[in-house]
Amino acid sequence: MAASEDSLRRALVEKQSTIESQGNAVRALKASNADKKAVDEAIEKLNALKLEKSSIEKQLQASVGGNPGSSVSKEAFRQAVVNTLVGRLFFIPSFKIYGGVAGLYDYGPPGCAVKSNVLAFWRQHFVLEENMLEVDCPCVTPEVVLKASGHVDKFTDLMVKDEKTGTCYRADHLLKDFCNEKIQKDLSISAEKAAELKHILAVLDDLSAEELGAKIKEYGITAPDTRNPLSDPYPFNLMFQTSIGPSGLSPGYMRPETAQGIFVNFKDLYYYNGNKLPFAAAQIGQAFRNEISPRQGLLRVREFTLAEIEHFVDPDDKSHPKYSEVADLEFLMFPREQQISGQSAKKTCLGEAVSKGIVNNETLGYFIGRVYLFLTRLGIDKDRLRFRQHLANEMAHYAADCWDAEIESSYGWIECVGIADRSAYDLRAHMDKSGVPLVAHEKFSEPKEVEKLVITPVKKELGLSFKGNQKKVVEALEAMNEKEAMDMKSSLETKGEVEFHVCTLGETVTIKKSMVSISKEKKKEHQRTFTPSVIEPSFGIGRIIYCLYEHSFYLRSSKTGDEHLNVFRFPPLVAPIKCTVFPLVQNQLYEDVAKIISKSLTAAGISHKIDITGTSIGKRYARTDELGVPFAITVDSAASVTIRERDSKDQIRVNVEEAATVMKSVTDGNTTWADAWANFPHHSSGSAEE
Amino acid sequence: MAASEDSLRRALVEKQSTIESQGNAVRALKASNADKKAVDEAIEKLNALKLEKSSIEKQLQASVGGNPGSSVSKEAFRQAVVNTLVGRLFFIPSFKIYGGVAGLYDYGPPGCAVKSNVLAFWRQHFVLEENMLEVDCPCVTPEVVLKASGHVDKFTDLMVKDEKTGTCYRADHLLKDFCNEKIQKDLSISAEKAAELKHILAVLDDLSAEELGAKIKEYGITAPDTRNPLSDPYPFNLMFQTSIGPSGLSPGYMRPETAQGIFVNFKDLYYYNGNKLPFAAAQIGQAFRNEISPRQGLLRVREFTLAEIEHFVDPDDKSHPKYSEVADLEFLMFPREQQISGQSAKKTCLGEAVSKGIVNNETLGYFIGRVYLFLTRLGIDKDRLRFRQHLANEMAHYAADCWDAEIESSYGWIECVGIADRSAYDLRAHMDKSGVPLVAHEKFSEPKEVEKLVITPVKKELGLSFKGNQKKVVEALEAMNEKEAMDMKSSLETKGEVEFHVCTLGETVTIKKSMVSISKEKKKEHQRTFTPSVIEPSFGIGRIIYCLYEHSFYLRSSKTGDEHLNVFRFPPLVAPIKCTVFPLVQNQLYEDVAKIISKSLTAAGISHKIDITGTSIGKRYARTDELGVPFAITVDSAASVTIRERDSKDQIRVNVEEAATVMKSVTDGNTTWADAWANFPHHSSGSAEE
Repeated sequence: MAASEDSLRRALVEKQSTIESQGNAVRALKASNADKKAVDEAIEKLNALKLEKSSIEKQLQASVGGNPGSSVSKEAFRQAVVNTLVGRLFFIPSFKIYGGVAGLYDYGPPGCAVKSNVLAFWRQHFVLEENMLEVDCPCVTPEVVLKASGHVDKFTDLMVKDEKTGTCYRADHLLKDFCNEKIQKDLSISAEKAAELKHILAVLDDLSAEELGAKIKEYGITAPDTRNPLSDPYPFNLMFQTSIGPSGLSPGYMRPETAQGIFVNFKDLYYYNGNKLPFAAAQIGQAFRNEISPRQGLLRVREFTLAEIEHFVDPDDKSHPKYSEVADLEFLMFPREQQISGQSAKKTCLGEAVSKGIVNNETLGYFIGRVYLFLTRLGIDKDRLRFRQHLANEMAHYAADCWDAEIESSYGWIECVGIADRSAYDLRAHMDKSGVPLVAHEKFSEPKEVEKLVITPVKKELGLSFKGNQKKVVEALEAMNEKEAMDMKSSLETKGEVEFHVCTLGETVTIKKSMVSISKEKKKEHQRTFTPSVIEPSFGIGRIIYCLYEHSFYLRSSKTGDEHLNVFRFPPLVAPIKCTVFPLVQNQLYEDVAKIISKSLTAAGISHKIDITGTSIGKRYARTDELGVPFAITVDSAASVTIRERDSKDQIRVNVEEAATVMKSVTDGNTTWADAWANFPHHSSGSAEE
Repeated sequence: MAASEDSLRRALVEKQSTIESQGNAVRALKASNADKKAVDEAIEKLNALKLEKSSIEKQLQASVGGNPGSSVSKEAFRQAVVNTLVGRLFFIPSFKIYGGVAGLYDYGPPGCAVKSNVLAFWRQHFVLEENMLEVDCPCVTPEVVLKASGHVDKFTDLMVKDEKTGTCYRADHLLKDFCNEKIQKDLSISAEKAAELKHILAVLDDLSAEELGAKIKEYGITAPDTRNPLSDPYPFNLMFQTSIGPSGLSPGYMRPETAQGIFVNFKDLYYYNGNKLPFAAAQIGQAFRNEISPRQGLLRVREFTLAEIEHFVDPDDKSHPKYSEVADLEFLMFPREQQISGQSAKKTCLGEAVSKGIVNNETLGYFIGRVYLFLTRLGIDKDRLRFRQHLANEMAHYAADCWDAEIESSYGWIECVGIADRSAYDLRAHMDKSGVPLVAHEKFSEPKEVEKLVITPVKKELGLSFKGNQKKVVEALEAMNEKEAMDMKSSLETKGEVEFHVCTLGETVTIKKSMVSISKEKKKEHQRTFTPSVIEPSFGIGRIIYCLYEHSFYLRSSKTGDEHLNVFRFPPLVAPIKCTVFPLVQNQLYEDVAKIISKSLTAAGISHKIDITGTSIGKRYARTDELGVPFAITVDSAASVTIRERDSKDQIRVNVEEAATVMKSVTDGNTTWADAWANFPHHSSGSAEE
């Protein structure tokens, strides 16, 4: 055992003993009916001590090897996490007995429970607290919708094929691998060459098919498995295609995102909201992406759960009524400027970033803040979470601003939530394609006077001159914008006639003064009609969960020190099971008490498991630690039981009848373990554990 | 207004006044600290009165026209329900702005909330209470899995095409429509002809493609829209097909059910459960069915949510530890015999049906009981719910028994839950295809002595006689079952040789005594290995929800009697929003109080909506009744507010600080409205409502 580990352990024991005395002090104060302030102060001191203890524990865990980047390498850490996840069925490669399918994974029982807890909290944190309109649309989507959204034409990756075997690869991945390997392993390359390769890595996402193909040829890159030559890169659409109905004439796709289902319903949802802006709609559901060759395990998959919000807002007023609730938050932000100038993410006050215009508007800022709260409450480490602004070349031309919540994992910084101000792009695209107006109205409190252009072609005159072409000339005249029309008006007034190009005829005609009247008229308008902007926070639930697994995982050595035990430090909110119930030894009395407690836990809606196997209590604790179960109730008498907290391994003693109530309170988040620790007698486990 | 309606209204007013006096009596007793028994009795009497009132209300609703089959026709009733559902966005035809896609529907905000409540209750009622192992598998499924399950070959409907336009129809639907129309509208047909057509309707599901085609020809049935001739019927596979990965070489399908994801994971799940039977796995998720021409609105759709349970059990022991908890339930059952003999469903005690062997086994019975409780707690009318046993020709050959929970709707009796004992079929199919053993073991407490057949071909002798065919003869000998082997043994002993047919050779050979030794040997076995049976309750969530809409919907006339108002009588458990908060009139004070109450409701996790529009209170009540919101809080002072119950329209008065607590209690199901009615002063609405 390393010296530092030893001294940390000693510090831990000392802190634990201080905590116990303080706990006794709190109880004594309570028993003597001391005034509330004195009790509160004592509890506060106790909580501070617990925090200090937890900090020592974290250091200890890091020194034992639970922290990536410390003594254990990232890959080894990831392997330890994944082994535990697979071993305890958090996830299972789908269709495993048939050899599996790359990029498809099942959530096994604890994984499914974690997912369901994350989604329930998402619904609570976003949908309920913000009164969002939740919808649930099908995955099967007709082509026309995805044609409008641009996915049919542009949702592609560039692919190359092994010219002999036909195996497919992502062109950019092959080039990236080649560059990385050269830079890292080939010591003979010149400084210029290294700089060139680094430049390619930097601009990889911007390369066209031709540029990628040229580089692949230049560097002589071949198929990784066979060394065969490769085809030229060509775009492969990443949507799973299918056919709707039996005719084979209605192409459809499995949706690549849930957002389109909301956009096409804008009109109804706006009406449902009383024709008022702003409002947000939300959807949780499956989305699909037929990856060319999935890598990165659980992070790049072919089917995944998205949770998306579309917040519709007046483009002239992007304030948010609850903005002040998040403005004081401070966390790691990584604006465009810092990225370009080679700096790293800095702790920033959200309100300052908004007021300085680094974040485009209040509503975007509000959602960034809410996403920060959501992720950290799930258990994402705030020091390994940053909000990175898209660079100009990353952002769609129509987007006003875009920030990704990136979480650091053993794979690097992973984009888990995208928060984009997409302006009016999506609604306009569907309005153009469907012909249905997807607009909002603002009623003026009193009518406004506006100047309107009025173009009135004189059909009789035009008919005499243009006969069969008359209709096209009329349409062309009516389609003039304000500048064109006013130019024509002044030409007609000065010269009496003007040359006018009619696109639809492909020729230029002469328009005389008698053929059209152009004027500006004052009109009273009662409302303004506009296409709302949409601000879209989009959550990759599977990625968030995977990062949460990495942030929650640590190893601690067993009591004997010869074994590393796996622990997930999930908060009760996300833990797959909230507590386990163990009879200390196998006997009928303890089993009966365990069943009584189990019944009261079920009645209180607390998910739990009874373990009546004869395995040693230490092993049973280790088993539940590995599932991230926060609490264990051990039955060692008919009157009272112990409750053990997973990370501190501290135990309190409570009466059988109180067990479910205490559990309810600490798992609901109404109270904390520190409260329970202050309120109940402590139990020393003796030699029971490990 | 009809006389009966009038007298019902009078009875209602009288009952209401009796209830009020009794309520006062209860409060007086409580105030005087009367003993608990007296108070309880008074509350009981109050509850009985409320029940009587509710019965009068039901009669009144039926006479006003809220009950299908009474004064309003089924179609008109359905139209009223669907109009309300569409109008309030419970559902929306998907991709409506593009003309929609048949068989695809969105859940709009209230529909989505109802669905989410139904699924949460399903999880609570089945997964949590039974400790089931929930999994979550992808929708995209490789062909091999659905080849093993039989879906690639057999999940088809017979289709005919309009020979000129190519429009597709379901062959059985066209024949069915033809027969129904003839029977109902053609008065000239003979009694024999009518009997023939009725017979066809009865056996429709059993007709082969050839038989269907022959009948379509015989009756001269043509395409309904064009009267063009039709093609012969041919099978159309109902799965949405796609391709996994970019090569085009890996066909895949969108899963037609969620069950296969569980079966392929059996081995891991069994291990997760400590290698113990019985256990159940469960999955909620999307399933897909590319219907030829969807009809029946929300009941026959192309994408739907299934919730499926696979309960794995030892085929030799299908008892269930919690069976006694449901054995006393009584509800409508419709066993095979009653269907064949033309009787109707009868109220039956579940325990009796199991003990008489009408229901195959205890576990199947247990799930039937749990499904009954699930559906009725959601608000399905128990008098319009029956459990119908599959007829012999409906059931798969491998199934031991199968019952459908059918709910009566305006479309007739609709299958909403299937509860089948599928024996070992599914696990065997995947074991055969994958080669992975999907079996369970039972360890014997002490080793058992068993007789085992041992067949030892003498390869040298066989080689001399059969040369190149030796291997096939050896395999055929080893494959003999016990009877075949023992017959051969005795023939060899008596005659010295025997004729033996080798299928794989397609010929009969002569086996001599020297070529094989056959014996029975005693062996000690420590465990038994077997394929578990699976009992599968499978829930069509969308269908259940649609039936729930019909069962919950009623019309009541407005106070003036000149308007019918729509109401959904959802229980709080499923109501999309639990309560609304209304300031009685628009003023700042009331609005502030409403906001305070809203905050406390959010903190208590109660979904609600504030309505601060200046609309009349009666109209606002009508709006929320139409959404099925059970309670409305009206703010008419700064100190106390009224709470109104939707169906009785009764109102109580509570302090502002108590409002959220009362709401929490009555929406959680911890107390009922009757309890609240007994505990709080009543408020008479005066002329406020309608």
